[in-house]
Amino acid sequence: MVSQVIPHALERLIQDLTRLPGIGKKTASRLALNILRRPPAEARELASALMELHSSIQLCSCCFTFSEHDPCELCKDPKRDPQIICVVEQPGDLLAIEKTNSFHGHYHILHGVLSPIDGIGPGEIKIAELEARVTSGTVKEILIATSSTVPGETTANYLIDRLQKAAVTVSRLACGIPMGMDIKYADKYTLAKAIESRSKTA
Amino acid sequence: MVSQVIPHALERLIQDLTRLPGIGKKTASRLALNILRRPPAEARELASALMELHSSIQLCSCCFTFSEHDPCELCKDPKRDPQIICVVEQPGDLLAIEKTNSFHGHYHILHGVLSPIDGIGPGEIKIAELEARVTSGTVKEILIATSSTVPGETTANYLIDRLQKAAVTVSRLACGIPMGMDIKYADKYTLAKAIESRSKTA
Repeated sequence: MVSQVIPHALERLIQDLTRLPGIGKKTASRLALNILRRPPAEARELASALMELHSSIQLCSCCFTFSEHDPCELCKDPKRDPQIICVVEQPGDLLAIEKTNSFHGHYHILHGVLSPIDGIGPGEIKIAELEARVTSGTVKEILIATSSTVPGETTANYLIDRLQKAAVTVSRLACGIPMGMDIKYADKYTLAKAIESRSKTA
Repeated sequence: MVSQVIPHALERLIQDLTRLPGIGKKTASRLALNILRRPPAEARELASALMELHSSIQLCSCCFTFSEHDPCELCKDPKRDPQIICVVEQPGDLLAIEKTNSFHGHYHILHGVLSPIDGIGPGEIKIAELEARVTSGTVKEILIATSSTVPGETTANYLIDRLQKAAVTVSRLACGIPMGMDIKYADKYTLAKAIESRSKTA
């Protein structure tokens, strides 16, 4: 009954939109109806941005982030410190770290985390490529910035193991209470971690 | 610093996505990066669905819903009762009502609500077109199904006023406690409305 009243082209767009993360059937309908209500030029602009996306963006052959150039702007930048490499799961993590303006070294994007259940082993993510960069000689420190989730931790521990013999310092992001958070709202695991990793005052 | 590391094509897609309702900068980045990570064919499919949207969908000249045909499937359907017209704000509301399977008449989409602050008067929405349908003679009942928001109520009251002289029954959706809701969680306005509109048991 309902599918009969939804035009086919609208139904198709709704279906396509539901493939995106966090977009369910209801949100997709709302977005599609909104696009339909607005000027056709806006829909065409969005379509053209989508078409251009993959054709103009590639992976940087050095750090594997998405970039229009190879090597990417960051790998080319002489102001950045080549002695420290921050290892992240996805390009989105790189952007999050760049926004802090607190890291001025280079990056390495793994493009995933180890997850044996999903068939993702060390060969499926950019670990060998990281080792190649480490053995090149310039690198002095590897900062592992994977998520503090189970697969993120597994990946971090695997990397620490594999980099043990290399002549580099391996560091990790600190875990603890988020800035500005009331202690009574922190979950018990975070709080336990914060106690365990407590820092001494002067 | 950050904009330098975001490829131009990605930045453009993020900008375009933020125009959609409920999509902020953060969600747009997440969606765009997700699209970039997936096969280019999926992005092309989404782009093509967007291109097709406006070209194949138009407004039904009778009820003003979005449709691939004119008149639309609903207006053409001989099984639907032409004596009752349900008046809604947007095509999405029509879909919501169709899902209930409780209404078997025709529809009329206003494409907006009266909102003097935004410069939307009776001439900007499909009110004259509704009157024309009412005076055609077949219609016996107008069910006003605008939202129970301030602009929705204003529009409903305006319609009731304007349809007063027409020889039709004007009805409205019932207001009250949502099905399955615990009374203590209902807001006081809804609860007051439910008390005011209480129905007598046999």
